[in-house]
Amino acid sequence: MNIRYAERTSSIKASEIRELLKLTEKPEIISFAGGLPAPELFPLKKINEVMSEVINEKGSIALQYASTDGYTPLREIILNQRVKPAGIDCEISNIMLTNGSQQGLEFSAKLFINKGDTIVCESPSYLGAINAFAAYQPKFIEIPMDEHGMIVEKLENVLINHHEEIKMIYTIPDFQNPSGITMSIERRKRIAELAAKYEIIVIEDSPYGELRFEGESLPPIKSFDKLGYVVNLGTFSKTFCPGLRLGWIVAEQEIIRKYILIKQGADLQCNTLAQVFTAEYMKKYNLDEHISEIISVYRRRRDLMLNSIKEYFPKDIKYTYPVGGLFTWCELRSDLDTAEILQEALKENVAFVPGLSFFPNGGKKNFFRLNYSNMDEERIVEGIKRLGTVLRKYYE
Amino acid sequence: MNIRYAERTSSIKASEIRELLKLTEKPEIISFAGGLPAPELFPLKKINEVMSEVINEKGSIALQYASTDGYTPLREIILNQRVKPAGIDCEISNIMLTNGSQQGLEFSAKLFINKGDTIVCESPSYLGAINAFAAYQPKFIEIPMDEHGMIVEKLENVLINHHEEIKMIYTIPDFQNPSGITMSIERRKRIAELAAKYEIIVIEDSPYGELRFEGESLPPIKSFDKLGYVVNLGTFSKTFCPGLRLGWIVAEQEIIRKYILIKQGADLQCNTLAQVFTAEYMKKYNLDEHISEIISVYRRRRDLMLNSIKEYFPKDIKYTYPVGGLFTWCELRSDLDTAEILQEALKENVAFVPGLSFFPNGGKKNFFRLNYSNMDEERIVEGIKRLGTVLRKYYE
Repeated sequence: MNIRYAERTSSIKASEIRELLKLTEKPEIISFAGGLPAPELFPLKKINEVMSEVINEKGSIALQYASTDGYTPLREIILNQRVKPAGIDCEISNIMLTNGSQQGLEFSAKLFINKGDTIVCESPSYLGAINAFAAYQPKFIEIPMDEHGMIVEKLENVLINHHEEIKMIYTIPDFQNPSGITMSIERRKRIAELAAKYEIIVIEDSPYGELRFEGESLPPIKSFDKLGYVVNLGTFSKTFCPGLRLGWIVAEQEIIRKYILIKQGADLQCNTLAQVFTAEYMKKYNLDEHISEIISVYRRRRDLMLNSIKEYFPKDIKYTYPVGGLFTWCELRSDLDTAEILQEALKENVAFVPGLSFFPNGGKKNFFRLNYSNMDEERIVEGIKRLGTVLRKYYE
Repeated sequence: MNIRYAERTSSIKASEIRELLKLTEKPEIISFAGGLPAPELFPLKKINEVMSEVINEKGSIALQYASTDGYTPLREIILNQRVKPAGIDCEISNIMLTNGSQQGLEFSAKLFINKGDTIVCESPSYLGAINAFAAYQPKFIEIPMDEHGMIVEKLENVLINHHEEIKMIYTIPDFQNPSGITMSIERRKRIAELAAKYEIIVIEDSPYGELRFEGESLPPIKSFDKLGYVVNLGTFSKTFCPGLRLGWIVAEQEIIRKYILIKQGADLQCNTLAQVFTAEYMKKYNLDEHISEIISVYRRRRDLMLNSIKEYFPKDIKYTYPVGGLFTWCELRSDLDTAEILQEALKENVAFVPGLSFFPNGGKKNFFRLNYSNMDEERIVEGIKRLGTVLRKYYE
């Protein structure tokens, strides 16, 4: 067999997380590797009740083909219950449904990136986005972060020198994946201004924005967007159920129309049943109440993880303090390689994601990401304790 | 706003069918335009029962993230109940789930097509495939058909002269969309041989293969594939429910592994709930019995449509006799333009799809496609009668 693949396939890598998740499926493994929500919080009784009503009353619509932009009642609910309350002023024609925000990321690269164009992102950044973008063969420029997110002075320097080649700024302003860092309001405003000034699209990825444990919610970059250069991506994967694969894109109408054409070719439309069901669920039940429950559970888990890190990790290891979301990010001594340390950790039946894949240009081996949403409290303490034992060997 | 889109976006067109479907949503329109299955055949009671069991008993799995290649029990069932009985000898590792076969088409272009590569297809061919491929900026060579499908002598001539540039042969062997034509067994064998000889991938699209009204099922091209150059695409959209968005790819392991990487970047995975539900449904109920019901309804509708055409259309109009599937294909006098005739038909509240978009290189305006699966018997007769009145004006 001598298959002639497209050139782009040489740029497509396996997601390190998805590969790791297979390893960590064994029940004896305490895994801080994934980004999975806590399944014990899925409101199964309510879901069952609403799903049954949908199939009984609207089955012939809910199981049939539907429009590419998405089921209109769900788009209305997303507009009124999620997008407008977040501070984005727009209309239903500015919203299109996607299979989770991952599809919004892939479509964005397909829509904006020619081979060789440059994407600017935080350093580190979400590896699922990096992989989705990589298929379109871009270059990446990484902008360092501090505790207030992407350092916009460094971003501006890059834009001044390279704005011709730069087609996209990719950012996760809230509780960033993998770092857990949240961008300040001043920087959000500034990024919107810079995007307009240099005519560069911003892809604002907000999967965790609604999972804030403390302090006030900050408005999305899209809320400061006067000229239409910001595209905002939302999802139900972290606030409801990821298995439904429902996310959305908010953008100017001209841009949404092009996303719709891409969606037509890609897979015609999202699962109709999931769309009709989610619309009916959100009419009947208050999603915000459900999110409050998730927040209180994740907050306790975060506290427990950070307290355990403080107790069991070597003192020289730095880690972030996430005010929401699913992750904290650990920095080891610069000579250490977390991919090697993972092998040792797996021997103790505990897993994390090594940080290297989160840097699109590579090179940084001394970081790892920890997830606290998917393990119960007992396992969090036990897992961090075991990991501490592994790590202390490197710090003696 | 001055948005710099990727160059490929200039090749992406709106699907004429999806645009038309919006027009034809009005209840007074008798639409032969879509390719929708008959929703009155969805087994809602059984679906409701199985869905309720799935949410109750497996909810925390069915609503969570799952693996990219697909839910293993569903892949097993697809292997044993659909792929092997169709005559394809393979294993579970040769199967990956997709969001309908549309996603399999888009992934195929992403995996195999560089800008400027050539795709060979039937003339006419499925416009959703043409649109999905177009985003990757290929050239198309169209191969004429006769009543036995793509004329393989013409295909071979093209391969002899252009095999370097040709990366893919795209074909729908059973009850082709839009023509309704079925490829003979000899030609299926020959295409598998030619693919191996010239080392060219065949994308065999089989959405309707199981909906045969008469005569014996023919083995798929994939069943004659000795060296692994044939990729077979299947779906539940026409045999069960399109709203679930579940299809599959059957290919060599080396190729499937690359499709999985593309799926990871594209949207991580298919809807988990739809996958678990469909697996449980097919364990409990016999899908073949359901397909038998669909076949008997569609067969009656086909007969009624063809009889009505015979009665009400001008005698000079040619049309195909589909032995299965959803469509017949009409050829008018060569000076007529079916896009113009559609405007007249819409005034009489009847719709079809003009044929032009089914020819990737354009130029042929005197064809249209009729769907008979989605209208009840009374409306089929009334619609064809009205269309006959419109058409007779052009033949007086």
